[in-house]
Amino acid sequence: MTEGPLSGVAVSPGRARGPVVRVPDQPGVPPGGPEPGDLAAEAARIAPAARAVATVLEARADRTTGEASTILLTAAAMASDPALVGNAERLVTQQHLPAARAVHEAAGGFAEALVAAGGYLAERVRDVHDVRDRIVAELLGDDPPGVPAFDEPSVLVARDLAPADTAALDPAAVLALVTEEGGPTSHTAILARSLGIPAVVAVRGLLDLDADALDVDGDSGTVRVADPAAPVVTARTGEPSGWDGRGGTSDGHRVAIMANIGTAAEARSAAEAGAEGIGLFRTEVCYLDASSEPSVEGQRAAYAEVLTSFHGKPVVVRTLDAGADKPLPFLGQAAEPNPALGVRGLRVAFDRPDLLDRQLQAIAGAAADSGAEVSVMAPMVATADEAAWFAARARAAGIARVGVMIEIPAAALSARAILDAVDFVSVGTNDLAQYTFAADRQLGAVAALNDPWQPGLLRLIGMVGEAARAAGKPAGVCGEAATDPLLAAVLVGLGMSSVSMNAAAVSAVGTRLAGVSRAACVTTAQAVLGADDARSARAAATAGLT
Amino acid sequence: MTEGPLSGVAVSPGRARGPVVRVPDQPGVPPGGPEPGDLAAEAARIAPAARAVATVLEARADRTTGEASTILLTAAAMASDPALVGNAERLVTQQHLPAARAVHEAAGGFAEALVAAGGYLAERVRDVHDVRDRIVAELLGDDPPGVPAFDEPSVLVARDLAPADTAALDPAAVLALVTEEGGPTSHTAILARSLGIPAVVAVRGLLDLDADALDVDGDSGTVRVADPAAPVVTARTGEPSGWDGRGGTSDGHRVAIMANIGTAAEARSAAEAGAEGIGLFRTEVCYLDASSEPSVEGQRAAYAEVLTSFHGKPVVVRTLDAGADKPLPFLGQAAEPNPALGVRGLRVAFDRPDLLDRQLQAIAGAAADSGAEVSVMAPMVATADEAAWFAARARAAGIARVGVMIEIPAAALSARAILDAVDFVSVGTNDLAQYTFAADRQLGAVAALNDPWQPGLLRLIGMVGEAARAAGKPAGVCGEAATDPLLAAVLVGLGMSSVSMNAAAVSAVGTRLAGVSRAACVTTAQAVLGADDARSARAAATAGLT
Repeated sequence: MTEGPLSGVAVSPGRARGPVVRVPDQPGVPPGGPEPGDLAAEAARIAPAARAVATVLEARADRTTGEASTILLTAAAMASDPALVGNAERLVTQQHLPAARAVHEAAGGFAEALVAAGGYLAERVRDVHDVRDRIVAELLGDDPPGVPAFDEPSVLVARDLAPADTAALDPAAVLALVTEEGGPTSHTAILARSLGIPAVVAVRGLLDLDADALDVDGDSGTVRVADPAAPVVTARTGEPSGWDGRGGTSDGHRVAIMANIGTAAEARSAAEAGAEGIGLFRTEVCYLDASSEPSVEGQRAAYAEVLTSFHGKPVVVRTLDAGADKPLPFLGQAAEPNPALGVRGLRVAFDRPDLLDRQLQAIAGAAADSGAEVSVMAPMVATADEAAWFAARARAAGIARVGVMIEIPAAALSARAILDAVDFVSVGTNDLAQYTFAADRQLGAVAALNDPWQPGLLRLIGMVGEAARAAGKPAGVCGEAATDPLLAAVLVGLGMSSVSMNAAAVSAVGTRLAGVSRAACVTTAQAVLGADDARSARAAATAGLT
Repeated sequence: MTEGPLSGVAVSPGRARGPVVRVPDQPGVPPGGPEPGDLAAEAARIAPAARAVATVLEARADRTTGEASTILLTAAAMASDPALVGNAERLVTQQHLPAARAVHEAAGGFAEALVAAGGYLAERVRDVHDVRDRIVAELLGDDPPGVPAFDEPSVLVARDLAPADTAALDPAAVLALVTEEGGPTSHTAILARSLGIPAVVAVRGLLDLDADALDVDGDSGTVRVADPAAPVVTARTGEPSGWDGRGGTSDGHRVAIMANIGTAAEARSAAEAGAEGIGLFRTEVCYLDASSEPSVEGQRAAYAEVLTSFHGKPVVVRTLDAGADKPLPFLGQAAEPNPALGVRGLRVAFDRPDLLDRQLQAIAGAAADSGAEVSVMAPMVATADEAAWFAARARAAGIARVGVMIEIPAAALSARAILDAVDFVSVGTNDLAQYTFAADRQLGAVAALNDPWQPGLLRLIGMVGEAARAAGKPAGVCGEAATDPLLAAVLVGLGMSSVSMNAAAVSAVGTRLAGVSRAACVTTAQAVLGADDARSARAAATAGLT
């Protein structure tokens, strides 16, 4: 059978050709019967199985460093969570389920809680499912799910990859990553970029492709069936090396290289990775167990724990980004037909300013406790009026430096008026792309539109840079776009004075920026703005900066 | 009790002060019991009640003209629909429901079918509910719902108004309209503008306000409790008069005044109202009974029936705008977390190009049958690539003039590249506002952001006008923004060469444009673009053009 080339979204550059290793889909639901004969004995099987899975994950964590190690340790901690094991045991003894099914159902309860918490935490549901499937396989005596063992350098083909799968990958053995689902901001994309492995995601029809070998172009997003007898090829972009930890271009123009984090553990990883500060501290984690609003004291302690890793350094704390898409039970919000276009982010505070005021009070307290240089910024700001409203409340709480996210197209179009009201702005490229292209970030079918190289998105960022220059105030980027070293250089050319990203990408981005001049960034950015599509935009950047 | 002023969204200019008349909320669900003693006699009560309601609505239609008359006749036809009456009768005889409850439930089935059809048709659900409530009131011997009779000129206060309520209003007796819900594109807003009545919608807290008289400012959106003893005040914008039917500014710059329609009846109303053509023909109505795809012949005949009212005149046919938010059963689309950001409009055709090709074939045939000057345009285009893809298919179907809607921010930001691929563009301000402000059109809580006077929105339209001028190709507006005569003049100043709107507004807009020079429009538009918020933008336009 002859197959034409398939197209997907190029998320990590480079080319590769080699044999295919297929990652199996997640296993199905284990059977609910027959009822175990000895309920106590069946329940007692669960804890050792969970411990065995945790041990495997911890061993993997020992063999890796940085972000990958953190991801694997988090998964190991989930596997040995006494609440998960205890709930599963009760499902055996009280509801007479077989152990495997009991684990499956107990994990379902955890996943639902994360989905209800929303946002950053909801993105961890994939981890819970991965841990669940590993324990179930252990109980059933099946092979563990995830990437199978393979001997020769290969192209990995999957529906999507779990964080624990990708975190343990040996970059030397993986020629390329190709997935049927996922988008430019998926875990697969982020890890591939940070490891320097070519990757294409959202390749529709991939899993139906009959191929023993593939030719993958991580620049154009094309995937072709290759002759298995042809020699293995790999052409990667330069590996990071020799960055001195001070962000800027080769001619000494300063660009702060910051990290995006949500927990104290991530803050420590970010400090280890060499981040010069935190460009986005997501505070949603404090609201996880949100049957009621967390106390000011509880919030203050939780924030201070995160901030201490950056004593004397800049940290931008984003106020609560909840909404109908990330519901917090105590807010009692009604369901909405399109939660991403509804009452979320700062909009929640228009009806509940007291909630915002208490969070601002806790942040101001944590800033004093930790000695970090704390700023705050608000999510989901659309107009200058809204920015001014937020700035007044933040300053009243004693926070000197106040900014807002630019993640709604209208905010980019009104950046100048917004900068009159605040001290800085930070572009959230993930949401900004979703609204600019009317393309849900969560929806694979429209993933190609969420490509951060789309010129329409970059034009809006250019307007923000222009407004910042005119106002003499800083504008940064804290979305996934900054994770791509080549794109980070273009963002600098568009007038961004800081880039904030996943800690895993800090070193690669710092290295790349140190190798280009500011003038080259500016000239290339203009060429990129003139491109007609994402592919030409990326090609223009490659031509101008490599 | 002293009440502070309330704020809402100003949707129709002018000021008024006067006594309050409250429109009661929709009645609740009639009781399901007791079971009628004589089922046949109970069932027989339904048809006469429905007939009585239809007669009242027809009589009202006779006392009005144009759009209002059409709305009332549509409602009358619904009331006497044999299927509605028949279904209700069966619910009495077979399920032993009282007649009033049976009518309520039978109407529920109709409303669900409209919601499933989506979009334009879903907007008619309010009509079905109104007709239902009128028949139920007739059966129960209650007063009919809707606007109560009142003697002196008054300010109407309601949760929202049904089309049949507003259509029969005597503009001389209504000083102002104020609603707790609704948005700038709601029926209340459209009618108020076309009747020249000051109106403010989305006034939160309105229904809890304890007031016998109100002071309403339709320019600023403010509503204040007034002294009932104070004299009645009314200050309206100029009434339309003396338009010669040829669209343009006072110095002869041509601007086509077109209408938006969805049915043959609306096409006839539009022709009577003096529209120079159709700027937006929504084809969704052909897909209403969409258990299967309509045949090419069926579509061709349906389109031709609409097009004949504009023989020799321009008509822009928009291809199917369905999606997860407007589901068509035969498309078999999966549910989406944010349907407005999902696979809708042209995106449906990327997977089902055959469906688009058959519709284009039917449109080409109907153009030949009717003698109208037919163009086609695609909804929900985000990039120049998508526009080129659509243009190629439309030209292959034999349609010479091809355009696309600009209703996604990215399309406005890439208007120049898009205009390289097509012959014209048409700005859909309703969706463009929703995406630009990340504010759901359907959600009252974010209605203020969907104000078409928001400078962020107007800046995007200005970019489209600039691109059209550079390309030497026309750009028009076919969203609700064009319904506001003052805003229509600003749109002309931003480079729009046509405006298309609800037929009821055609004369008022034509009259207004005929009274201003092109230079005044251009100068005023620049002032409007420099405004910081919607209120200042409107004030700048008022200062520049009146």
